[in-house]
Amino acid sequence: MGNTTGRLFRLTTFGESHGGGVGCVVDGCPPLLALGPEDIQRDLDRRRPGQSRLTTSRQETDAVEILSGVFEGRTLGSPIGLLVRNRDARPGDYERLQDVFRPSHADYTQEVKYGTRNWQGGGRASARETVGRVAGGAVARKLLADQCGVEIVGFVRRIHTLETVIDAGTVRAEAVEASLVRCPDPDLSPAMIGAIDAVRAEGDSLGGVVECVVRNVPAGWGAPVFDKLDADLAAGMLSIPAVKGFEVGSGFAGAQMKGSAHNDPFIVREGRIRTETNHSGGIQAGISNGEDLVFRVAFKPTSTIRKLQRTVTRAKEEVTLEARGRHDPCVVPRAVPIVEAMAALVLADHYLRHRGLTGRAGPAF
Amino acid sequence: MGNTTGRLFRLTTFGESHGGGVGCVVDGCPPLLALGPEDIQRDLDRRRPGQSRLTTSRQETDAVEILSGVFEGRTLGSPIGLLVRNRDARPGDYERLQDVFRPSHADYTQEVKYGTRNWQGGGRASARETVGRVAGGAVARKLLADQCGVEIVGFVRRIHTLETVIDAGTVRAEAVEASLVRCPDPDLSPAMIGAIDAVRAEGDSLGGVVECVVRNVPAGWGAPVFDKLDADLAAGMLSIPAVKGFEVGSGFAGAQMKGSAHNDPFIVREGRIRTETNHSGGIQAGISNGEDLVFRVAFKPTSTIRKLQRTVTRAKEEVTLEARGRHDPCVVPRAVPIVEAMAALVLADHYLRHRGLTGRAGPAF
Amino acid sequence: MGNTTGRLFRLTTFGESHGGGVGCVVDGCPPLLALGPEDIQRDLDRRRPGQSRLTTSRQETDAVEILSGVFEGRTLGSPIGLLVRNRDARPGDYERLQDVFRPSHADYTQEVKYGTRNWQGGGRASARETVGRVAGGAVARKLLADQCGVEIVGFVRRIHTLETVIDAGTVRAEAVEASLVRCPDPDLSPAMIGAIDAVRAEGDSLGGVVECVVRNVPAGWGAPVFDKLDADLAAGMLSIPAVKGFEVGSGFAGAQMKGSAHNDPFIVREGRIRTETNHSGGIQAGISNGEDLVFRVAFKPTSTIRKLQRTVTRAKEEVTLEARGRHDPCVVPRAVPIVEAMAALVLADHYLRHRGLTGRAGPAF
Amino acid sequence: MGNTTGRLFRLTTFGESHGGGVGCVVDGCPPLLALGPEDIQRDLDRRRPGQSRLTTSRQETDAVEILSGVFEGRTLGSPIGLLVRNRDARPGDYERLQDVFRPSHADYTQEVKYGTRNWQGGGRASARETVGRVAGGAVARKLLADQCGVEIVGFVRRIHTLETVIDAGTVRAEAVEASLVRCPDPDLSPAMIGAIDAVRAEGDSLGGVVECVVRNVPAGWGAPVFDKLDADLAAGMLSIPAVKGFEVGSGFAGAQMKGSAHNDPFIVREGRIRTETNHSGGIQAGISNGEDLVFRVAFKPTSTIRKLQRTVTRAKEEVTLEARGRHDPCVVPRAVPIVEAMAALVLADHYLRHRGLTGRAGPAF
Repeated sequence: MGNTTGRLFRLTTFGESHGGGVGCVVDGCPPLLALGPEDIQRDLDRRRPGQSRLTTSRQETDAVEILSGVFEGRTLGSPIGLLVRNRDARPGDYERLQDVFRPSHADYTQEVKYGTRNWQGGGRASARETVGRVAGGAVARKLLADQCGVEIVGFVRRIHTLETVIDAGTVRAEAVEASLVRCPDPDLSPAMIGAIDAVRAEGDSLGGVVECVVRNVPAGWGAPVFDKLDADLAAGMLSIPAVKGFEVGSGFAGAQMKGSAHNDPFIVREGRIRTETNHSGGIQAGISNGEDLVFRVAFKPTSTIRKLQRTVTRAKEEVTLEARGRHDPCVVPRAVPIVEAMAALVLADHYLRHRGLTGRAGPAF
Repeated sequence: MGNTTGRLFRLTTFGESHGGGVGCVVDGCPPLLALGPEDIQRDLDRRRPGQSRLTTSRQETDAVEILSGVFEGRTLGSPIGLLVRNRDARPGDYERLQDVFRPSHADYTQEVKYGTRNWQGGGRASARETVGRVAGGAVARKLLADQCGVEIVGFVRRIHTLETVIDAGTVRAEAVEASLVRCPDPDLSPAMIGAIDAVRAEGDSLGGVVECVVRNVPAGWGAPVFDKLDADLAAGMLSIPAVKGFEVGSGFAGAQMKGSAHNDPFIVREGRIRTETNHSGGIQAGISNGEDLVFRVAFKPTSTIRKLQRTVTRAKEEVTLEARGRHDPCVVPRAVPIVEAMAALVLADHYLRHRGLTGRAGPAF
Repeated sequence: MGNTTGRLFRLTTFGESHGGGVGCVVDGCPPLLALGPEDIQRDLDRRRPGQSRLTTSRQETDAVEILSGVFEGRTLGSPIGLLVRNRDARPGDYERLQDVFRPSHADYTQEVKYGTRNWQGGGRASARETVGRVAGGAVARKLLADQCGVEIVGFVRRIHTLETVIDAGTVRAEAVEASLVRCPDPDLSPAMIGAIDAVRAEGDSLGGVVECVVRNVPAGWGAPVFDKLDADLAAGMLSIPAVKGFEVGSGFAGAQMKGSAHNDPFIVREGRIRTETNHSGGIQAGISNGEDLVFRVAFKPTSTIRKLQRTVTRAKEEVTLEARGRHDPCVVPRAVPIVEAMAALVLADHYLRHRGLTGRAGPAF
Repeated sequence: MGNTTGRLFRLTTFGESHGGGVGCVVDGCPPLLALGPEDIQRDLDRRRPGQSRLTTSRQETDAVEILSGVFEGRTLGSPIGLLVRNRDARPGDYERLQDVFRPSHADYTQEVKYGTRNWQGGGRASARETVGRVAGGAVARKLLADQCGVEIVGFVRRIHTLETVIDAGTVRAEAVEASLVRCPDPDLSPAMIGAIDAVRAEGDSLGGVVECVVRNVPAGWGAPVFDKLDADLAAGMLSIPAVKGFEVGSGFAGAQMKGSAHNDPFIVREGRIRTETNHSGGIQAGISNGEDLVFRVAFKPTSTIRKLQRTVTRAKEEVTLEARGRHDPCVVPRAVPIVEAMAALVLADHYLRHRGLTGRAGPAF
């Protein structure tokens, strides 16, 4: 269990990094949504390894096949099966890792839980599992865009010690994609690329922060207790490999503010109730308030490094390990479409739940 | 919907801040656990308003009644109904707020979602809802302590700009409770109390950070995809009122580290596989690794302040608001048992799930 | 676990036959539904023991208290907590049953599962648990009536060997309630009453069949695979104590028909697509087709009888048992409101799911 | 939504009768179960069209591919993706049915719900969807057999008016498979085959009843309220296409018995608590009691017949319809492995739930 997310708009993923393929089943997508492979391929290409010199050299075209749920270019309301075959798996690379636990990797915990693991890669904890999320998230994104005009834009806020001060509200998707490192700040982007190049040469890795802004979410999505919109976003983001933190709106910085400065005054603009500031990050009491959703996700540095490390074997012998294999020195740029996909999945689910409860797509007044 | 959490160990809460009472149903608690009202009352008393001069003056004894599920001092395996009556509700205090939306409160979003709200308080978004969580969490905590020896200790890491550097690994529950502000650092605790006293006098409020350490969690709880242990903890924490951020282990600071420094080397100590450092916060690939779980939760400053604020009415008139009512200038100390309760609920659920999947309470080897 | 039903409109029940009380939490009821205690009490009174000379002599007023979720006579969209106190519990009646398993009762299986049980009655398997269902079902029923005009009418089709041939389509709730045995056939109702009186005198018990017709369900509710409307109705009905069978439309008799006779020809009447016959029972491929839903539920004879029976003790000794206590010789008349409640709960859930998926309450064309 | 079943052992199916293929994801299967394609293929072959002259002439090899979740012949504990390609789809056969609703088929209700449908077959309501159930059910069956010795044997109890009186307790799988019609009664089996041959010649169809016996289920699986073992079995069975009824143990006949005859006396045999009769069908208060589970499932006659029928078009014109295409005149023999698969899925789920709650696979004493 644990491979399904969502209540009404549901995603189930399957597949290991090595084996027949990875994919997903999207269940609960409303009927009559225009959907073709190209809608899904676009985001898969943004996640794909080998897309730029910054990423792992593993070559995967990651071409998606729609197995079911779409008929004559529109969704049927039935489950959408999506499959991406594994092509460039090189299990031989991993053979010598069969009994060794790579530090801060999933090797040990998967083996200690299940008593087994597919040692030909990271198994379910591999970033390759996120193919299914990005594919399913693309369907969610299409639904939200078509039916509500929702726009989801993620970007790299920080790589290691380099953080842009750009205003999330102004970030456009084109500017993000124009940067190899998916940072829309033209002044900082080259430095980030340089930092990644440098760390690759060292055989080390870097972490960073992805920020995501979601526009045009109607007020009223979410709920005030366990199904808070930000609680579900937090779960979605922490479910992404390598994520160590989540914050919405003011986040951890908000903990250092006074209420008088933090509260977002309500105002009326063009006949609509708005807030003057957005420390809430577009969510109050777990429910969207009509402002942009803004949240940030912290990624640790990639666990796989070429530097020599101490570790142990299954037989509890202490050994040293020098990793090989093909890996990204910094996963943060490729994580942007994954963050967007998880956001889309959470929002699509809340959209349908809100509609179920109230019969409306948006606010009560 | 949205008032149930957990899959096997499940909590459903009900009740508004004003009305007949608040409570919960705990479903899925294993049978034959020794349980009495005192096990639950202990944590309710730690959450209770009026417990110290730092908290709201609302007086509630919060005495819990066990309605079902316990027989001759032991659980039956049937749902445990718990009820706490509301006593000191003063709905009259709120009458003039009937049509005004308090900034950064739940008033606007609840009304925009549901088209109505109980304006005699915060409704379901009131901190009073957490009575049910603390009550249910106490059951989870007893289960984990009795069957696995799990110990959960939360404490105040930061109030506003004051942050203790105490090592979480050394913190004892007694030291936390000995501090009015639940900060186990005797050097910093008085300053924190002073800061809260000062902000109350100003009519303003403060935020802060709660840290939580969980000891003796066996390796193997959790799962590598959507049911990551840290993803469920993140959702649990973000579901607490006023929370804006969550981080586990190295968290946001980890995003500024290199892999060679961040990776936790595996070592063997007393015949057990351990990690030398704990940047992972006790969770790798969503599964516990046998080290202490360590996570932090950011709370924004309380929304209710006495200072004059700008806001709007339901009729979209801009007005000013001077809040009255009884509120905490800083909820962070009272949030400690709530954080612990949510952690207990998540862990009890994962304990049972792990046992269901593997037939074991702990690791495979 | 196992005490919650529904996905969007959710019911959680709690309480044993002996203890503080029984009740439920209704989660997911849309806001602004007019709801008062009288809406719930009406159905509780129809389920209540002691309502007529045909039922157990246990005296319970079963007065319901609304703990939460309703404000100024309307639902808030928050969970509705409902509580009914136990009054006339006589645990002493059961003392000698502490170690004896009553045949075909829940004593043995509850103890073999949990290793314990509340021997002061049937525990969770007691018919008293259905108080929570009837209370929650009354909310579902109000929602369906107010928002969709749905009408749910159950009645006794059979007691033991006595079966009415009345046409379900013509049955009115008033005619059902006019009969002590809830059989709207004035010719057969007295005979049924006589049969129950006779079996009570013998110290034995009778089974029977409840039939239920649901009118004005819009076409389109349900789904074609695991969430078939009839699959969820079947689960709901089999979850009622003493139920051994469920059939929809033609049911078991349909297995003896040919397709040419069983198929319901589509016709057009007053501009609407209808079926000429209704062997489908209003559901095709798991989805409502706009005709009356019709289904039947088989109840075994009450397990508790006064006649001498052979059984065993927890210590595996074979003994004989002569039951005392207060019980119905035939639960079927009192089961009618329980069947209706479960039907209402299933339908309310499917109503909201359909609205979530499609944005409509009813059919696509 | 609606394409996933189970809580811990979960099955998600996808695929239409026409399109890329049908399949499933099994989530929650414990690790280290020996599993190969042959374990799954065996049951798929029993479900396959074209397996005998009694079934549809559609030719499908239905060869299964394991996409994930199995490594070196054993399950990993990760989701098991299973895919069966569609081969002999002839959408052209259906072209003239594009706007016509076949009586008692899924055409109308799917279109009225979704506003669209894949008219090249039955869509999700096609029996072809059950490929995913049988494949997933084979995994559940292997788990139950290997870990608990559970044996599941379904057989044809009735075809149309022909019903065998064979004792379910004596039925062996080999005897079932030895009959073309899957009726283990050698005296009645030829007559059933004759009846099917005759109705095919007429262009008509027949219904029937499948009975299923499950041996070696430990006492203690299930729960006494909404998660009754028989309630989940009922839902599973009613979710199979063409099913109109379910009964467990004495079923509808039990409604005609007196309690003194219906109650199953407890006895002690070879040191175990047993019941002398089994009117309960192995389940009391929703929990298995250690006796054989016995239940029956009623199938209506196949909707697709060659005889002329009256129906309507999407444009609400009344027309006549003469079906073509390839269909079974009686689906009951092929339904046997589907009934077994659904039983296996329900039982595997309850096995894991019971183990999660109690830490045991079986009874408390």
